[in-house]
Amino acid sequence: MAEQSPKLNRIGLAGLAVMGQNLALNIAEKGFPISVYNRTTSKVDETVERAKLEGNLPLFGFHDPESFVQSIQKPRVIIMLVKAGSPVDQTIKTLSAYLEKGDCIIDGGNEWYENTERREKAMAELGLLYLGMGVSGGEEGARNGPSMMPGGSLEAYKYIEDIVLKVAAQVPDSGPCVTYIGKGGSGNFVKMIHNGIEYGDMQLIAEAYDVLKSVGKLSNEELKNVFSEWNKGELQSFLIEITADIFGIKDDKADGYLVDKVLDKTGMKGTGKWTVQQAAELSVAAPTIEASLDSRFLSGLKDERTEAAKVFGDILSDEVVVDKEQLIDDVRKALYASKICSYAQGMNLIRAKSEEKGWGLELGELARIWKGGCIIRAIFLDRIKQAYDRNSDLANLLVDPEFAKEIIERQSAWRRVVCLAINSGISTPGMSASLAYFDTYRRERLPANLVQAQRDYFGAHTYERVDIPGSYHTEWFKLAKKN
Amino acid sequence: MAEQSPKLNRIGLAGLAVMGQNLALNIAEKGFPISVYNRTTSKVDETVERAKLEGNLPLFGFHDPESFVQSIQKPRVIIMLVKAGSPVDQTIKTLSAYLEKGDCIIDGGNEWYENTERREKAMAELGLLYLGMGVSGGEEGARNGPSMMPGGSLEAYKYIEDIVLKVAAQVPDSGPCVTYIGKGGSGNFVKMIHNGIEYGDMQLIAEAYDVLKSVGKLSNEELKNVFSEWNKGELQSFLIEITADIFGIKDDKADGYLVDKVLDKTGMKGTGKWTVQQAAELSVAAPTIEASLDSRFLSGLKDERTEAAKVFGDILSDEVVVDKEQLIDDVRKALYASKICSYAQGMNLIRAKSEEKGWGLELGELARIWKGGCIIRAIFLDRIKQAYDRNSDLANLLVDPEFAKEIIERQSAWRRVVCLAINSGISTPGMSASLAYFDTYRRERLPANLVQAQRDYFGAHTYERVDIPGSYHTEWFKLAKKN
Repeated sequence: MAEQSPKLNRIGLAGLAVMGQNLALNIAEKGFPISVYNRTTSKVDETVERAKLEGNLPLFGFHDPESFVQSIQKPRVIIMLVKAGSPVDQTIKTLSAYLEKGDCIIDGGNEWYENTERREKAMAELGLLYLGMGVSGGEEGARNGPSMMPGGSLEAYKYIEDIVLKVAAQVPDSGPCVTYIGKGGSGNFVKMIHNGIEYGDMQLIAEAYDVLKSVGKLSNEELKNVFSEWNKGELQSFLIEITADIFGIKDDKADGYLVDKVLDKTGMKGTGKWTVQQAAELSVAAPTIEASLDSRFLSGLKDERTEAAKVFGDILSDEVVVDKEQLIDDVRKALYASKICSYAQGMNLIRAKSEEKGWGLELGELARIWKGGCIIRAIFLDRIKQAYDRNSDLANLLVDPEFAKEIIERQSAWRRVVCLAINSGISTPGMSASLAYFDTYRRERLPANLVQAQRDYFGAHTYERVDIPGSYHTEWFKLAKKN
Repeated sequence: MAEQSPKLNRIGLAGLAVMGQNLALNIAEKGFPISVYNRTTSKVDETVERAKLEGNLPLFGFHDPESFVQSIQKPRVIIMLVKAGSPVDQTIKTLSAYLEKGDCIIDGGNEWYENTERREKAMAELGLLYLGMGVSGGEEGARNGPSMMPGGSLEAYKYIEDIVLKVAAQVPDSGPCVTYIGKGGSGNFVKMIHNGIEYGDMQLIAEAYDVLKSVGKLSNEELKNVFSEWNKGELQSFLIEITADIFGIKDDKADGYLVDKVLDKTGMKGTGKWTVQQAAELSVAAPTIEASLDSRFLSGLKDERTEAAKVFGDILSDEVVVDKEQLIDDVRKALYASKICSYAQGMNLIRAKSEEKGWGLELGELARIWKGGCIIRAIFLDRIKQAYDRNSDLANLLVDPEFAKEIIERQSAWRRVVCLAINSGISTPGMSASLAYFDTYRRERLPANLVQAQRDYFGAHTYERVDIPGSYHTEWFKLAKKN
């Protein structure tokens, strides 16, 4: 035992990697004495040390699971922050050996929602409560106020409500960035979509950077200024802010700026993949998020790309000449309009799942708890909340009157940017996908009639008509041969 | 018993919906006496009747599963053509009650490959053999020569090799459109990707139609001529051929052409969804196929689109004026180049899965068996086969010297078409996605460095450098605050 708690603590936290350490310190700082445990005990000592340094916070370390569990007041609440999948099962097994009826475990990781539902059921059979709680905000958010998405047992949520309301990010006029999401795996599902939206935001920003740098020839210093400026307006958000920061940082190992030395290969951890798979499962179009995932996949093929660049060489002969100021303004508008499409996809994914599972999720409330703490926090989320406040049955964010107006004002710039990118040979997969989504969604008549006619031609899949109700099949082949 | 077979038959077929009936008649016509069975017995009688009418074919119907099974010579081979999922399990259960060791069941439906692997194992425990055999070609292909993709037990394949070699489509200089695909669920997996590619082809053709009709103002008669013309060149294929047919067919219920009366809502049956989900699972970018699936999803939201069309109205004021002949030529090139990207994605999906599962699939051989019989049959597949003949380790079809040359010759037209569509407000999701795929794959340097820098900024995910090996983490936030 690293240190003995004088009396029983309010809560426990197991798993002291970077997120766990920071969340534990945050909870302690908010005045809730906390027990912490980690299998590798050096992490326990490290966390205890940090708690001392960061203001003698009421955080107590334990080297064995039994004394850890027994140091927590009943009904016990333990947050786990370990890797998704089997480490979670392993931790549950270790802890539940010492837990008693009515105690509760909370998974704070990015877990697949069905795993949470399976575990909630298994725990219930032992008389234990369970929550799957998405936590967003990275290292810094965990320490100073994340956005938290707890789902599962409402009773368990009530145990920790006083804690999470204080620990979560606090947004003026909007409250703490946490709410009870809903039953089952809804907390994990919502966090997963949050991450899918995050993929979209990051990809769209990368494309804006690409157009400004590759076509507009902006320097890092200019890019820093552009993004700082953007962060004062409609695009104000954590990701735009850190992007501006990134462009300002000099390399410490060589001349120049660090961003230019970073290899163009993007890692990923699974939530983006799940989002795309769920979109297909739920029959919800999510092209912007798909483009973001595909871009990460293609970024990983660095060697293949290097070879392909040799095969194709410089296939675009003419440099496109642009007016820098006009370009910057156009790209800002294209980014904003594309972002609306990406969020529309994400919100519709959540709604589709909520309907399937009977979770009764409130989209406006989700936008509210994303306003602070998390990676996608942005002034923009307030507009989304307002849109759902105006109409909770809104079929798509695109047709909210405010968003529709914003898109109409930006669509010419958006089209200019995408075409400019195409003609410069760089393409903008996310912005193009968003624009195609918009142009498809707002068209009463699509060329899908041809696809359905083809399906009926070769597979007798039948079709409906625009003018007469019913289902029809035509012997296309026979009629064609008669012609 | 509808009719007694004089002696034992060579093979059996259960499931007499449109595909099953036609395949059974095809097998009988090739000289293999066949027993047929269906739970709804009227289908049995109907098939027997057709066998008589279509030339007194050696086809024998049975109304109960026991006499059906016992009418087949040992080792018995039975092809099932029933709906994927639990109907397959049900049929297996019914038939296997009467089967004996060494007998074999073949699932000819579009089954999820893991179900086939599960069943193959379960059957092996009973001493039975199992194949999952994708069959493409629709009604007409099944009757006159489909493309067949049998995977699973090699021993079982050997039992039916003489049959499938005759039943499959025959392509001059290329042979029958069937080969043993590989172990496990590989036959179903390959058929699934075939269907994903089919989704891509159909969407790209629909977009070509859309641009020619909406921007070029071509009449159905002109469209018919254009597609007929295209079917004489590089685009020659079954889908282009039937598209030409479709444009020529007059409505039989009202004035005008039938294609204009078909509702613009596209159905689907699951293989496209699975393809997209597998792409995410395998970390393979498949944006064209994803765009095709999303377009089907969005086509289904007819009511929402009608509402959205009202909200946005006619937001593009200027009609774009085009040279019709130039447009037709450009669209042909754009379609062809987009198609290369779509097939590149599909082939890479197959290779990724083959590597994961150790199936050892031969991509060139797959292209060969798709040259006839199936929905995606096209002259183009011969070029794909040649590309893999030249280099079986080809990383991507795009960098094959022949395809690369073709793309370079077409890229200006391709960019013109996509931009024209964007500026006409119709967008071309599949062509745009293909172009973005091409422009991403051929770029040595992508803006993914920014995404990775962001990930390291907020999540300490680390990054690599372009100049020095190793994994790095930077305290971006601290450095930025110093600036």
